[in-house]
Amino acid sequence: MTSPADSFYLRDIPLPEAQARFRRALESAGLWGPLGRETVPLDQALGRITAEPIWASLSSPHYHAAAMDGYALRSADTLTASDSHPVDLAVGSGAHYVDTGDAMPPDTDAVVPVENVEPIGESRDGRALETIRLRAALAPWSHVRLMGEDIVSTELVLPSGHRLRPVDLGAAAGSGNIQVVVCRRPRVAVIPTGSELVPIGTPPLPGQIVEYNSLVLAAQVEAWGGTATRWPIVRDDLEAIRSAVAEAAESHDLILVNAGSSAGLEDFTAKVVAGLGELLVHGVAVRPGHPVVLGMLRRADGTQRPVIGVPGYPVSAALTGEIFVAPLLAHWLGRSPDEPDTLPAVLTRKVHSSAGDDEYLRVSVGRVGERVVATPLSRGAGVITSLVRADGIVLIPAGVQGHSAGETVSVRLYRTPAEIDRSIVVLGSHDMTIDLMAQFLAPLGRRLISGNVGSLGGLHALSRQEAHLAGSHLLDPETGEYNLAYIRRYLPDVPVVVVALVGREQGLITAPGNPMGIRGIEDLDRPEVSFVNRQRGAGTRLLLDYHLDRLGLPAESVLGYEREEFTHLAVASAVASGSAACGLGIRAAAQALDLGFVPLFHERYDLVIPRQHAESPLLAPLLSLLKDDRFRESVAAMPGYDVTPMGNVIARLP
Amino acid sequence: MTSPADSFYLRDIPLPEAQARFRRALESAGLWGPLGRETVPLDQALGRITAEPIWASLSSPHYHAAAMDGYALRSADTLTASDSHPVDLAVGSGAHYVDTGDAMPPDTDAVVPVENVEPIGESRDGRALETIRLRAALAPWSHVRLMGEDIVSTELVLPSGHRLRPVDLGAAAGSGNIQVVVCRRPRVAVIPTGSELVPIGTPPLPGQIVEYNSLVLAAQVEAWGGTATRWPIVRDDLEAIRSAVAEAAESHDLILVNAGSSAGLEDFTAKVVAGLGELLVHGVAVRPGHPVVLGMLRRADGTQRPVIGVPGYPVSAALTGEIFVAPLLAHWLGRSPDEPDTLPAVLTRKVHSSAGDDEYLRVSVGRVGERVVATPLSRGAGVITSLVRADGIVLIPAGVQGHSAGETVSVRLYRTPAEIDRSIVVLGSHDMTIDLMAQFLAPLGRRLISGNVGSLGGLHALSRQEAHLAGSHLLDPETGEYNLAYIRRYLPDVPVVVVALVGREQGLITAPGNPMGIRGIEDLDRPEVSFVNRQRGAGTRLLLDYHLDRLGLPAESVLGYEREEFTHLAVASAVASGSAACGLGIRAAAQALDLGFVPLFHERYDLVIPRQHAESPLLAPLLSLLKDDRFRESVAAMPGYDVTPMGNVIARLP
Repeated sequence: MTSPADSFYLRDIPLPEAQARFRRALESAGLWGPLGRETVPLDQALGRITAEPIWASLSSPHYHAAAMDGYALRSADTLTASDSHPVDLAVGSGAHYVDTGDAMPPDTDAVVPVENVEPIGESRDGRALETIRLRAALAPWSHVRLMGEDIVSTELVLPSGHRLRPVDLGAAAGSGNIQVVVCRRPRVAVIPTGSELVPIGTPPLPGQIVEYNSLVLAAQVEAWGGTATRWPIVRDDLEAIRSAVAEAAESHDLILVNAGSSAGLEDFTAKVVAGLGELLVHGVAVRPGHPVVLGMLRRADGTQRPVIGVPGYPVSAALTGEIFVAPLLAHWLGRSPDEPDTLPAVLTRKVHSSAGDDEYLRVSVGRVGERVVATPLSRGAGVITSLVRADGIVLIPAGVQGHSAGETVSVRLYRTPAEIDRSIVVLGSHDMTIDLMAQFLAPLGRRLISGNVGSLGGLHALSRQEAHLAGSHLLDPETGEYNLAYIRRYLPDVPVVVVALVGREQGLITAPGNPMGIRGIEDLDRPEVSFVNRQRGAGTRLLLDYHLDRLGLPAESVLGYEREEFTHLAVASAVASGSAACGLGIRAAAQALDLGFVPLFHERYDLVIPRQHAESPLLAPLLSLLKDDRFRESVAAMPGYDVTPMGNVIARLP
Repeated sequence: MTSPADSFYLRDIPLPEAQARFRRALESAGLWGPLGRETVPLDQALGRITAEPIWASLSSPHYHAAAMDGYALRSADTLTASDSHPVDLAVGSGAHYVDTGDAMPPDTDAVVPVENVEPIGESRDGRALETIRLRAALAPWSHVRLMGEDIVSTELVLPSGHRLRPVDLGAAAGSGNIQVVVCRRPRVAVIPTGSELVPIGTPPLPGQIVEYNSLVLAAQVEAWGGTATRWPIVRDDLEAIRSAVAEAAESHDLILVNAGSSAGLEDFTAKVVAGLGELLVHGVAVRPGHPVVLGMLRRADGTQRPVIGVPGYPVSAALTGEIFVAPLLAHWLGRSPDEPDTLPAVLTRKVHSSAGDDEYLRVSVGRVGERVVATPLSRGAGVITSLVRADGIVLIPAGVQGHSAGETVSVRLYRTPAEIDRSIVVLGSHDMTIDLMAQFLAPLGRRLISGNVGSLGGLHALSRQEAHLAGSHLLDPETGEYNLAYIRRYLPDVPVVVVALVGREQGLITAPGNPMGIRGIEDLDRPEVSFVNRQRGAGTRLLLDYHLDRLGLPAESVLGYEREEFTHLAVASAVASGSAACGLGIRAAAQALDLGFVPLFHERYDLVIPRQHAESPLLAPLLSLLKDDRFRESVAAMPGYDVTPMGNVIARLP
């Protein structure tokens, strides 16, 4: 039992201290070591971890074997053979026909390959000869695979703690094993709690959340070699949670209780843990993930089982799995935890971090020229797409307040370095064609990483060598020309080629049916018309500013001018949710969410590509795509898109 | 049908040409593309490959959600709030209590966290207040997670051709998906053929081989995303093979026919393929792996299915899987084949390669100081342990005659760079304690790579910086001292520490019961006593030479002096097989194979460790092991071993 005073000291302790407490408790419960073992036949052993070494009970080969098709003989009989004094041997007594792999007949110690003998006569079956003639001596054991060449009986074949791969199964079988002793898979219970949760497949009402953390945690457990049982959702009721946890502890090795995302709810977990055993830790200084609970549950038989209270936000939940569950399962399986590959990378943006926490910063990673660059993704604990898009994690330890842009950091990779090397980084303006491009490139062996930093942001990224190319639609108000003036200004020294991607329609995205009767930019100063803007540096924002200026409307007259979203779809989403009456964006975004659209402008969206990358094999499949009929048709099928200019080289600069 | 003349031209064509022919045949059969798709619920989708993009049908969040526990309100109502002019709002009308994750009540656009309000009164349920007081204005949408912050409905969540990871399942569920469309797993039939084969579990007679290639191939297929059906062994009978292949083709997407290892047998496969469809390739210029057969089979319905005749030697079989099966399955699953990570490494030994073949050289890889070193493993196609022990492959392309020692080559890794970095390379004399060490180190996060190159070979490897430490038992005939004289001679400039590992018994390994009555080295010149020796540079060979010299026996008087094996167990195996009457080796090797043993000498076996490595964190667990009771007991339990000296520092040189 834990008193409130204890509980105070359990809050937000440093990660290493939390890990040490958990480990000590597991040790004293006799649970810090491999859990158990089981014997499985070889054909079910792929991917399992050996619980004891595999020894050879049979040599391989297990007999002296002919290594060629030919005649087995006694080498001593051939000692005198030479060109001038050939030796003749009778087949059946002095020599014996053997196929490759045949056992050497008794008292023979060499094979003469069939192509090295002179035929004398031919036997009845048309294959073997009656007598063979040799014109050279054979050394003992020529063309013989000696017993034990590969494996000697009693030899170590594989150590314990080894994950069995296909060839390992072959070596085990070849050395006389029929089955192997592997570590028992840890059994993990995953209990989602929260009255706001609904199961996958139930359309959620506002305030309800589709429960998928248990899906992710269970899949993690399976991927790490355990088996998971997903409990049905337990409502926020202390007694109901207590009873589910107690039941799970009786039949599982580890219990994961996933609290609702509400700040108060994880206290239920802590109370339940304190009531059913010992609360070790209540809050760990990691970000995201703070409200982690660690404890030990007492079973009816007096033994203990560990419990982890997993925070409700999806990113926190998945990272809690990586930080606490993965190492424990590895340990239970007799392995050291998988060490991620690390790669030094240059951080593209400044990052502040709370000095009190270990922060797990999600980043996308690409190799641009000679440099590996890491771009921070959303840090929101609720943004699961930040984990989906993450190529790795930068760990910012407690005590470090953050990193500057341009600093070299170590990235713990989620992908292999080879995957990083075939990744194309596109930064700049958001366009849905980029998403389509990603799909078309995947089967061609290229991974597209895109970041929406606005057109100007894309050009800046090129000048800092953080991207292979940028998407841009920057209208020059003086010339009516797209992009070139900006490229000359911001990339004066970088040789680039500018290639048109699409023409597209920009306009005002409104509620379905345009109930407020918005006709154009001139209506944005109507007091009842709330607006949602794009971020600074976005081509769409510059377009708005240009037209506001032409109409003489100050930004302050637009309600919501300062509210910024990063993509067309995010703008459309704001309108769809009713939080804004309109926003400037592309027709496809309006249509995607069944919204109204007031077409206003046609514009061209270009790809700006430094020449060093334009000519690289990495980008070749992307450039070919611009001439690919299937790709062009898919783009043209999106509303408001014109593929006529696609692939046209607009300029080579400087 | 293929005529004999065609068949001639099909032999041993270059690999790229073989791949191109296979691809063209698959294309014209309409089989060069994803095979098909199926819909699976999310909880069964881990590891599957998406066959189409996953789109969001629900935004996440799908409503404006409170991001803190607190009070939802209209930000406009707080505009005037300040320290001196607080604003009071009535709970229930001007403000509404919300938990994190709750939907924002209608007409509210901000949340004030509960810790930022002044309580005025307390409501009946003890939680919410009756009135709250604010002393600062709130910006619109403060502490609100806007609808679509993570994912906007209609947005691309994941592209097609993507292997689903745990977090991907969460993102799919969170964006409103219940199931996903994934690529159908390719169905692969694996048909082992050969009258010499016996199934796993049947003790093989001489000339019989345990059939495990189908186990390896089936596991490879599973690991690469397919499902495999293993056929029972088919005897070497054209009609039986034909009938199995024809049957398999009716229900499978790919048929693998594994020929026996006999050179003549794969012709059966070629004949069967030519008879049931089209023989495309009969022999590919790759090593190991030559006799690969590629073809297309005609089904009863007129459609075609590819067939691969896989060579019988186990290394050839597994590499044929990697070269031909893996890319085809990847393609059928809509993915580009996994590109292995590559690492530049320095080759430790000269390698000759046939200029006509692409050779797949297996190597072990370690990082020694600043250098990554690759050591070639056995090149025998029958030595499956060479694949088990391989850390990667060096591809020596046709046209290249080999590489020199010290040349930098590119290694296609079977392991992650992180695994390479925690590998300890031990070269030198063979001792069974090294195998035990490997087992004890595995759970401590260290991988031990050992190579038996003899004691002198180990010292040379240290001088070339190819190993972290060497095992050595070199007796100096003049002083009776071990190792130090040799270290002074061969490593004059390398600071090393010499640590004793074990004392051990050397003697003559004989047939069980020592039927020839061998008493010692003096009996080795008896004409009926055949001997098996160790390789040049082995401490045991030097020991023999020393004692032959003392007795005045010339090497020529020992029958079999020139026959070399690389390990004690290999010597024992030669004696056990009857191919030699005796050999010099350690007691443990004799006992392992139940052989006779004539004890002759006690010797010390040391570890020679360059000081730079002795002080590195990499080796720390190995050095601790020398003081570990459990390890010492395991070594002492082996016959003929004395652990008294273990861990003693013998010398620091120079």
